[in-house]
Amino acid sequence: MRMYDLILKKRNGGELSTEEINFFIESYTKGNIPDYQVSALLMAIYFQKMNKRETSDLTMAMVHSGDMLDLSAIEGVKVDKHSTGGVGDTTTLVLAPMVAALGIPVAKMSGRGLGHTGGTIDKLESFKGFSVEMPTEKFMDNVNTLKIAVGGQTGDLAPADKKLYALRDVTATVDNVSLIASSIMSKKIASGADAIVLDVKVGDGAFMKTTEAAEELAREMVAIGNHIGRKTMAVISDMDQPLGFAIGNVLEVEEAINTLKGNGPEDLLQLSLALGSRMVVLAGKAATVEEAEEMLKGTITSGAAIKKLKEFVSAQGGEVDCIDNTDLFPKAKYVVPVAAENSGVVKKIHAENLGLVAMELGAGRATKESEIDLAVGIVLTKKRGDKVEAGETIAYIHSNKEELIDKAKAGILANYEIVEGYENDIPLIHEVIS
Amino acid sequence: MRMYDLILKKRNGGELSTEEINFFIESYTKGNIPDYQVSALLMAIYFQKMNKRETSDLTMAMVHSGDMLDLSAIEGVKVDKHSTGGVGDTTTLVLAPMVAALGIPVAKMSGRGLGHTGGTIDKLESFKGFSVEMPTEKFMDNVNTLKIAVGGQTGDLAPADKKLYALRDVTATVDNVSLIASSIMSKKIASGADAIVLDVKVGDGAFMKTTEAAEELAREMVAIGNHIGRKTMAVISDMDQPLGFAIGNVLEVEEAINTLKGNGPEDLLQLSLALGSRMVVLAGKAATVEEAEEMLKGTITSGAAIKKLKEFVSAQGGEVDCIDNTDLFPKAKYVVPVAAENSGVVKKIHAENLGLVAMELGAGRATKESEIDLAVGIVLTKKRGDKVEAGETIAYIHSNKEELIDKAKAGILANYEIVEGYENDIPLIHEVIS
Repeated sequence: MRMYDLILKKRNGGELSTEEINFFIESYTKGNIPDYQVSALLMAIYFQKMNKRETSDLTMAMVHSGDMLDLSAIEGVKVDKHSTGGVGDTTTLVLAPMVAALGIPVAKMSGRGLGHTGGTIDKLESFKGFSVEMPTEKFMDNVNTLKIAVGGQTGDLAPADKKLYALRDVTATVDNVSLIASSIMSKKIASGADAIVLDVKVGDGAFMKTTEAAEELAREMVAIGNHIGRKTMAVISDMDQPLGFAIGNVLEVEEAINTLKGNGPEDLLQLSLALGSRMVVLAGKAATVEEAEEMLKGTITSGAAIKKLKEFVSAQGGEVDCIDNTDLFPKAKYVVPVAAENSGVVKKIHAENLGLVAMELGAGRATKESEIDLAVGIVLTKKRGDKVEAGETIAYIHSNKEELIDKAKAGILANYEIVEGYENDIPLIHEVIS
Repeated sequence: MRMYDLILKKRNGGELSTEEINFFIESYTKGNIPDYQVSALLMAIYFQKMNKRETSDLTMAMVHSGDMLDLSAIEGVKVDKHSTGGVGDTTTLVLAPMVAALGIPVAKMSGRGLGHTGGTIDKLESFKGFSVEMPTEKFMDNVNTLKIAVGGQTGDLAPADKKLYALRDVTATVDNVSLIASSIMSKKIASGADAIVLDVKVGDGAFMKTTEAAEELAREMVAIGNHIGRKTMAVISDMDQPLGFAIGNVLEVEEAINTLKGNGPEDLLQLSLALGSRMVVLAGKAATVEEAEEMLKGTITSGAAIKKLKEFVSAQGGEVDCIDNTDLFPKAKYVVPVAAENSGVVKKIHAENLGLVAMELGAGRATKESEIDLAVGIVLTKKRGDKVEAGETIAYIHSNKEELIDKAKAGILANYEIVEGYENDIPLIHEVIS
């Protein structure tokens, strides 16, 4: 088999066989195919697309390119949740304790973030002493006893995907639905998930800008999952404004805690319930989504969810006093209100740009080497559809550096659209695909 | 400027600016852009095409990537001829002495061939002692006094094209008309030609299989030439069967000599006149193609052309007795007739396959290291449209190895189509584009 023939076949609109896709991924992972042939194939795929069979085969070939986590020591159906990434998205911290409180195992492997805010591990480090470093045995034990643990990424999961993604990133071949879908799904499957709930974000603050594109990606991923026997559901949710009010690590953790206490932002709660209920259904603990939602809400009213959060944080060495009293979290030195310049209704909050403002305040990493300031960020007080009077506070800047405040203020004002007579007509959840 | 942005722009159907194309070629030649980005761009060009301006810019950028031959010491208009490559094509050896005999400078830089037969230098080495090694001054002197010289390739002409071609060859991005046209034209322009006559072959034995494809390539090259001020004409000629009768080095040289003596194959003469007359017109020595053809025919009847061949070969150290007496050329040990298996009319002679049969006899190089046997090859006696009786000789095999004869015979028979009631309707010259 020659890579040249695969490029030619795809370029001419042909369908790559399972053997051809396996050959490509195996040889590329071993370093036996040069990048320049792979990038030519990727560009040919960009133009000629891949069908569902090819996409599934590519996914599984990438799964088999490295280690697969063995979660068989964990009892029950392992359901993983994945988000395609948005701004101020704290759903994992909300739904994981709720789902675990229902006795469903949540075995999460997470990474540190690159972007507006930190990743799940960074956020969890808001709890002083919290650590993801533990032997595999302890991780499995924690999941079996507490039903929840978050570990750092171990093993060499889907190395072919890492190599391919790095190449796509510099050759303008990222935005192809088959390549995106197989990249996401290969990592989830290699992580040992039995079933997967996907949160596909759509809008200004998401990679997918239109509902059509998000829907296409969601269908593709659900098709892959079902094709290879991992039950998969996708929720297409709005990212045309940040989720919740907080953007920043400690700020988002506080918001998640408030939500688990029953005082969180409505959109964060609703999305957490929408995703969490599907995890419960896929785990076989409820027959319907409605039933699952009621069960999840029950973990809030009964206090089981917040109790689960404490157990989990404590088991991984984190201080939990701040869960009862969030004033104990590290706080920014300056908390500065941002006043609206005109009256009207909030029509748009450019999520991605606000994320960048938060990153510049220190909430996120611009490069792998950047240090995160856990305390800083932005807390919105007005969201899409809210009425605003000129001079009224629309957001608070949390900063540890005085000199960053003016620029952040300008950034926030520039990314809030306040107009006359707007009525919000964008739903939080666009569609569910299963 | 970033290569990534160029890939993205072309992928999305944009037009690359002159600056962008110059940046790409300059940086790639210097090794500042990795192959994997270039192959992605090439594949994007394959799908999105380049317009005439982009193609001209690419050509000139490649010309400027290396040395340009300075032929200003040669008096007169330097007209070069280029063929896209066929089987048994000896037109250069026929038209160069004719054109030179009319006082038009023929300053040819040639290479050794890779394929069915040798290149022009290999063929000229049929003349014992002939050499292309000479100081540049001697080369220029010879052109000025004799009007004809053939030199080996000197200087680093269009190195960007060499690099790009090598990459296209392994990434299935060869067959794009802009990339083919700019590759050919960049080398011709860097070689110092003032005007260019192109022989674009079409048919089974050519790279371009259809008249439409050949026409598109011809138009593209003529447009480049005219866009950058080098008068260019293209003749689209038939390569659905070998040109002339001979395939092999000495065999083709003998055929060229016979043609210059007035006893050559009709098709070889006609194509040589069609191409040569356009060189004469572009050199400003005739007002019309018809006038030029008459002048060229005159060099045969007057003996001026064969005399010019002798002067030229002699000036470069070659023995010329064999021009008067072709029996003095090296001859193959075995000359074996191939008999037709059935009666009918020759409908097709698969040129490319016959070329490969000749190569296996030793006439061409399979790899750069192969040694050429100048004496061997094939001489056809029947061509398309000719009537054949079963048992009649259709070709002769010239071989120095007895053990190769049977396979060659089978190869020739397999590639001759002899049918009932066929009438040849394929013209030698399809079209002229200027």
